[in-house]
Amino acid sequence: MYDSDSFISLQNQASRFDSPEFHLKQMIKAPGRLEQFSLTVPGLFFDFSRQRLDQKIKNSLVTLARKSGAKKMFSRMVLGDKVNTTENRAALHTAARALVDTNLVPEDTGIMNDIKKVTRAIDIFSAKIRQGSLTGTRKKPFTDVVVVGIGGSYLGCEFVYEALKSCHTPKIALHFLSNVDIDNFAQVTADINPDTCLWIIVSKSYTTTETLANLAQAKAYLERNNLLPRDHLVTITAKGSPGDDPSNPVLESFDMFDFIGGRYSVSSAVGGVPLALAFGFDVFERFLKGCHTMDSHALCAAESENIPLMAALISIWNTRILGYTAQAIIPYSSALSKLAPHVQQLYMESLGKGVDSNGIPLLRPAGSIVFGEPGTNAQHSFFQLAHQGPAFPVEFIGVLAPGYAGEQVTSKGVFNHQELWANLIAQTLALAEGMDHEVPARAFTGNRPSSLLVVKDLSPESIGMLLSFYEARTVFEGFILGINPFDQFGVELGKVLASGIRKEMAEKNQNPDHSITHLDTTAAFYIRSLFAGKIG
Amino acid sequence: MYDSDSFISLQNQASRFDSPEFHLKQMIKAPGRLEQFSLTVPGLFFDFSRQRLDQKIKNSLVTLARKSGAKKMFSRMVLGDKVNTTENRAALHTAARALVDTNLVPEDTGIMNDIKKVTRAIDIFSAKIRQGSLTGTRKKPFTDVVVVGIGGSYLGCEFVYEALKSCHTPKIALHFLSNVDIDNFAQVTADINPDTCLWIIVSKSYTTTETLANLAQAKAYLERNNLLPRDHLVTITAKGSPGDDPSNPVLESFDMFDFIGGRYSVSSAVGGVPLALAFGFDVFERFLKGCHTMDSHALCAAESENIPLMAALISIWNTRILGYTAQAIIPYSSALSKLAPHVQQLYMESLGKGVDSNGIPLLRPAGSIVFGEPGTNAQHSFFQLAHQGPAFPVEFIGVLAPGYAGEQVTSKGVFNHQELWANLIAQTLALAEGMDHEVPARAFTGNRPSSLLVVKDLSPESIGMLLSFYEARTVFEGFILGINPFDQFGVELGKVLASGIRKEMAEKNQNPDHSITHLDTTAAFYIRSLFAGKIG
Repeated sequence: MYDSDSFISLQNQASRFDSPEFHLKQMIKAPGRLEQFSLTVPGLFFDFSRQRLDQKIKNSLVTLARKSGAKKMFSRMVLGDKVNTTENRAALHTAARALVDTNLVPEDTGIMNDIKKVTRAIDIFSAKIRQGSLTGTRKKPFTDVVVVGIGGSYLGCEFVYEALKSCHTPKIALHFLSNVDIDNFAQVTADINPDTCLWIIVSKSYTTTETLANLAQAKAYLERNNLLPRDHLVTITAKGSPGDDPSNPVLESFDMFDFIGGRYSVSSAVGGVPLALAFGFDVFERFLKGCHTMDSHALCAAESENIPLMAALISIWNTRILGYTAQAIIPYSSALSKLAPHVQQLYMESLGKGVDSNGIPLLRPAGSIVFGEPGTNAQHSFFQLAHQGPAFPVEFIGVLAPGYAGEQVTSKGVFNHQELWANLIAQTLALAEGMDHEVPARAFTGNRPSSLLVVKDLSPESIGMLLSFYEARTVFEGFILGINPFDQFGVELGKVLASGIRKEMAEKNQNPDHSITHLDTTAAFYIRSLFAGKIG
Repeated sequence: MYDSDSFISLQNQASRFDSPEFHLKQMIKAPGRLEQFSLTVPGLFFDFSRQRLDQKIKNSLVTLARKSGAKKMFSRMVLGDKVNTTENRAALHTAARALVDTNLVPEDTGIMNDIKKVTRAIDIFSAKIRQGSLTGTRKKPFTDVVVVGIGGSYLGCEFVYEALKSCHTPKIALHFLSNVDIDNFAQVTADINPDTCLWIIVSKSYTTTETLANLAQAKAYLERNNLLPRDHLVTITAKGSPGDDPSNPVLESFDMFDFIGGRYSVSSAVGGVPLALAFGFDVFERFLKGCHTMDSHALCAAESENIPLMAALISIWNTRILGYTAQAIIPYSSALSKLAPHVQQLYMESLGKGVDSNGIPLLRPAGSIVFGEPGTNAQHSFFQLAHQGPAFPVEFIGVLAPGYAGEQVTSKGVFNHQELWANLIAQTLALAEGMDHEVPARAFTGNRPSSLLVVKDLSPESIGMLLSFYEARTVFEGFILGINPFDQFGVELGKVLASGIRKEMAEKNQNPDHSITHLDTTAAFYIRSLFAGKIG
């Protein structure tokens, strides 16, 4: 794609933006700027008027998207084509929320039936647990759930859980046991009562090392507390995986499908089971509806009107052409505190690639760093650098209505939520405009790009739209760049090397005299240190 | 400094590292590599053998440090010189933990007396609260503390609290109310019992907008619960600030000093009061001891043996010369999950600058992005990009002994903590070595630099060493680059603009017809949307 006409045309236009008249403080003054560089869909508004682009660039970006066939690819994805070419799989996260809409349904009706079966099972199971008619060994209703899973098996679910908590009090509290670190296990078990805790094991292959190690700890913990694993364990795994084994009975088991990848799995059973247990199936269904609304928009809206597509194009413009190497995601909402970690995984794992979809090495690797903290916190953390250090684009997120509906007072004449917005607006303007000052330390160069995505509230529908927006944005960026946003071969080498080191450790556990001198110096040094409990 | 001989010499050597013989997979094979490129101090080990440098670069870096006078500056800092030149202040965080060591004590004995007075007051106050002899309005012992503060007033304390929890069960639980978002207030108050909750208001100036807004909510909350603010509020603020006002009585008040900046304040009352309440003063004192051990090392060790100084030099080499634009901090420890957010603030606010200490604009702005999540979680999140996307240096942190001491089982023949280390070792090697493969999608270019910092455990002493290591590393990097790591003028413009917008909102709260058409289009648009509860 880097040699395509539309890409080269964009590259040729980039230098134009070095000249003073294209400084953002000038550009944003143009009449109609906001109208011209914003898009809307009911419930969500995308303002990219403080990005470093003009109508000509916008047109060129849309042309790039059109020529790339990204929308066609999206359509093929939704219909169940094997768009994950390297792994020869479909990518049907959109089907998981297309329960009532024939527009977004794969051609293979068997797939839809399988999905519907799982969704019904979630509904029935979550109702039984929440009513207390299905209980653990001691016949007490469940109060807590530990989700055992790592990466895509928990980051999205954690984001949605934290977000929905602002409007819905969870009847059952969720805890996340992801890290193989035994201290993660200690942290989680400090907060639960074993009698009333359900453990959900999430692993498609049921071979994920961390998850299996934590499952082993969970089983031993249940046994120490005289509880039966079959009364306290639930599995979410692929049919036929080692976890799908009738000789190891569990309270309930839910199917994971090979056509929904980990980082796109929040709307499948991976998010569905824990979220329905916490908030009720109706809330989870409303969340799915929100996802679906944005999916429909992504599928149907023309390139020039398509919000996630436009966001993907801006990301390409910023990182592949203007040369920014990182992007910040700053939601002005405490409830969205886990959005950045989720998108960090979604984006960096999907797009951090060295080859295109045909396996041909890219001129330079794709992807950029995504990081973020909620505002106003971020202002008091790293915004010093954002304003006066090396620039990076920011994606701000604003929420019109907070979740809190209780009593409150004003401070300096405004409510907290207004103060939050005063700061959000101020930051977008400060980054763009900058400020001259005779003292260089007090001067701001400005011209620092940002977008602002606004949702109306923190309802399940809005959170669903946000989730789907980031999924679609990521997928579109992959399609336009011509890379596969669904595989992750880059995590394999670490696994292979860890497996070799683990083997040596296991040997040494059996036989303390087991020699490790054949290993690489570094590995031998640290294994020795670990076993000795001191360095060297 | 960019025109200094030693800096130019480093620049001239950089291209050498493009040639295959300087690929890390070759370099790390050299006999004695680990010994040559590692440093140790009792309790902490720093391995930089997988950084892209050789003895010649190391020597040039040490020369750069020597010529910069960074160690002399550190010494001046410790003695109380006004090294924060732009604000004409000392930077004496090291004095807050130098209680018994005359080596690290400022020349002005009045300062030490003031610090000691506060430390004694923390000891006495925390004992009374923990024993239950000092209680709230309803005469019940306190069980929870809400720390109200933002940025440096909470990030460091939160890091240390989470870290120490792995070995010490808090008698009093800490909660952090930082964000002005009313949903942050809702989250925090959902978890506490008002009768047994103490509120600590942390603000040096007592004018921080977020903190004052949350204080107003806290007071109203206490009143709604028929509790007296003077029984439930504690202040940590500068003498003479609006918070130091006898007509607003509080349960206790602690001094903050102008010679300890927010992001360096964990070892002052800012961290001391909450941490001593949670864990007891003895634990906090052990933490201070750990900080002090590392301070002494930073002060006394020669440049070539100085761990935080060497880490600062490597950061300069990577970001200013090799051209990496971000650094990841990946602790293989759940207990250190808040280390990266703390260092993100410490580093990006201290070093994200556009001018040098004399106020002269830099050739290009200083500082780089710092981000991170604990391993192994990070492996399942953004390590795809770390291995196959655009490269960034990683600082790994390993902990020899976990906090957890309870029962556990093995999985695949190893304990969880061994599995954690197997992965840590594997990742450092995989990034450095890479792997050839005939299928490009399965190939790894390697040559990706990382360091490994090892502490022996999660004791208060070790956590103190880690905290001080990052403080010293940051300060050294500022001194070598010739920038002031203690000021933050870059946050001012946002505050000024927010204040103007707040004023309009306050007017509009009083008078709904208040016109805002004189404002900038963007600001007017969003204020209108916020008041209308819908976009447009």
